[in-house]
Amino acid sequence: MHTAPAPVLDPHADIVELTAAIVDIESVSGNEAALADAVEAALRTHADHLEVIRDGDTVIARTHRGLDRRVLLAGHLDTVPVADNLPSTRRTRAGREELVGRGSCDMKGGVAVFLQLAVEAVTAPVDLTWVFYDHEEVAAADNSLTRIAAEHPDHLSADFAILGEPTSAGVEGGCKGTMKLAVTARGIAAHSARDWVGDNAIHHLAPVLERLAAYEARRAVIDGLEYRECLNAVEISGGIAGNVIPDRATALLNYRFAPDTSVEQAEAHVREVLAGLDLEITITDSAAGALPGLSDPAAADFLAALGEDVTLAAKQGWTDVARFAALGTPAVNFGPGDPLLAHTDDEHVPLTDLRSTREVLGRWLGVTR
Amino acid sequence: MHTAPAPVLDPHADIVELTAAIVDIESVSGNEAALADAVEAALRTHADHLEVIRDGDTVIARTHRGLDRRVLLAGHLDTVPVADNLPSTRRTRAGREELVGRGSCDMKGGVAVFLQLAVEAVTAPVDLTWVFYDHEEVAAADNSLTRIAAEHPDHLSADFAILGEPTSAGVEGGCKGTMKLAVTARGIAAHSARDWVGDNAIHHLAPVLERLAAYEARRAVIDGLEYRECLNAVEISGGIAGNVIPDRATALLNYRFAPDTSVEQAEAHVREVLAGLDLEITITDSAAGALPGLSDPAAADFLAALGEDVTLAAKQGWTDVARFAALGTPAVNFGPGDPLLAHTDDEHVPLTDLRSTREVLGRWLGVTR
Repeated sequence: MHTAPAPVLDPHADIVELTAAIVDIESVSGNEAALADAVEAALRTHADHLEVIRDGDTVIARTHRGLDRRVLLAGHLDTVPVADNLPSTRRTRAGREELVGRGSCDMKGGVAVFLQLAVEAVTAPVDLTWVFYDHEEVAAADNSLTRIAAEHPDHLSADFAILGEPTSAGVEGGCKGTMKLAVTARGIAAHSARDWVGDNAIHHLAPVLERLAAYEARRAVIDGLEYRECLNAVEISGGIAGNVIPDRATALLNYRFAPDTSVEQAEAHVREVLAGLDLEITITDSAAGALPGLSDPAAADFLAALGEDVTLAAKQGWTDVARFAALGTPAVNFGPGDPLLAHTDDEHVPLTDLRSTREVLGRWLGVTR
Repeated sequence: MHTAPAPVLDPHADIVELTAAIVDIESVSGNEAALADAVEAALRTHADHLEVIRDGDTVIARTHRGLDRRVLLAGHLDTVPVADNLPSTRRTRAGREELVGRGSCDMKGGVAVFLQLAVEAVTAPVDLTWVFYDHEEVAAADNSLTRIAAEHPDHLSADFAILGEPTSAGVEGGCKGTMKLAVTARGIAAHSARDWVGDNAIHHLAPVLERLAAYEARRAVIDGLEYRECLNAVEISGGIAGNVIPDRATALLNYRFAPDTSVEQAEAHVREVLAGLDLEITITDSAAGALPGLSDPAAADFLAALGEDVTLAAKQGWTDVARFAALGTPAVNFGPGDPLLAHTDDEHVPLTDLRSTREVLGRWLGVTR
């Protein structure tokens, strides 16, 4: 029983209006169906030049013009939970116009730009694959790209990929890898008034924190982009009761490593940093980074088409570009919005970011409007 | 509507039987009424020589024989929650007979010995005050000794006090003080892939743990008893999310200090240990210790009456003897049961402890049975 009509998206609308319409279709991870329906309908209605594939709540649209190269442009439809910040609003702050609301920055601005250009880029210099996917803001195993890469890797094959994650409308190449390690020290429990019969596990973490505090992180320059590594304790816990010497304490470490380093090399490095300490070290999560691959011809063409105002930098945070790198496809991040605003309650996107991203990509893809 | 008859205690029963009967009257903190009723009834029925005062669920019984000195003997009626270990059972393990059940060790063995001697010690060399009190196993503010010390300090006045807490039937003099301090380091939150714009608060705890790990605790010898100090992190916490540099991390420290040290001196000492570090230090809990006062004439008489088998040591853990010390009364701990078994699911008391405690105290108090 649907009492409200299904939302309709007009891909030819002004890019700000289109972004607002997409933001206003709530799509917290797991609830992407309505937005996927609207995206699919817009593509089927307005883009005869595209093959449209619906796979779960992911929508893939492709040209088949027999061109030499294929570029994939991908954006996720889902958002983190709403924080009383829907529907979207508009405001002007310090002379800057902004669209405010959950998903405006991460990453419905990018989705709007891609949806509009999917419909309008009919004479692009390359074949195009547009991917609007679900479950990005949750566990990697649930990300629909995981399923599609396994079941239909051909759907994702391309010479170059652009991910519409927020980059403040600059290009951010590749991404660093990430690894989480649980580092546990053991001791012997005892009453805290008789510590000499015990062995304090929290105290055994002293040299771990000491080494992390003194750690000098590597800066790797790849294709002219600087990836700064980071090694940190992101969580620490231990303690049984206020009168007990704890027999166990754990620090959760997060190592962000340059994309020239494999997961195996990353693990070996952290173990070397902690060498000689009596600890249990368990990797709880890891993902390789992505090399920027800017010298690849398809990437070089894209960079050449950018105006002088577009900045070029390394992507420090891990993004789904690493999934494309794992498939052998060099990839960059390029999208409207400040990545530091992603997931915040005050999530917003400057209207100039929406317009410039649309303009730069459109120019490259031969859209003259 | 009482459907079961109120339990009746026979203070002349064998000390093991009496202890079992007391253990079998469940009296988790807040539920001491039935046991207090039974203790009060036993005293009123069997001890004409005592003035009996009922104050809440505390029962106080006193002689008024006009003797030079007054000794107070106190035991709490309450226990920590039952762990499927009631009613009590008997067993023999490794040739040792034991009474098993919640409260058997902490501290209904002591209560049974005191109840029996309260009735039978009619010709003691000192005037006696027996205190059976409630709410010991909960917050200090709820302990009935707190209320009675404020409302009727005369009820607790004595020259010497004996607390029946488990000491494996040895005498443990005085007790150490205790202080808890929350030690918080501040930093600046940031994404863990861009730690250079943040400041990791967990890493700032490195020198705290380092100093605690290297800490050489003082051993204070007072009246021939050695109080070993302890300074430990008993809890540590910090962390916002696996991809965030935390802006706050806290270690909870527990300092156990010798009874020659005041709370103020203890605080100053911990601050000195942590001197020069940028930390917020908050005392969350503190209680002074108790000097053993063994050279006091009343204490000396008691010690002189002990047999050679009774050991004498410092009490390392904090107990209510500190409350008597605060009232100017030297105090020792003396009771059946291993203090390390208190609060455990396998709580039990050796029958030899019950008998020897009864025997030693009875000899001193002139009970010949």
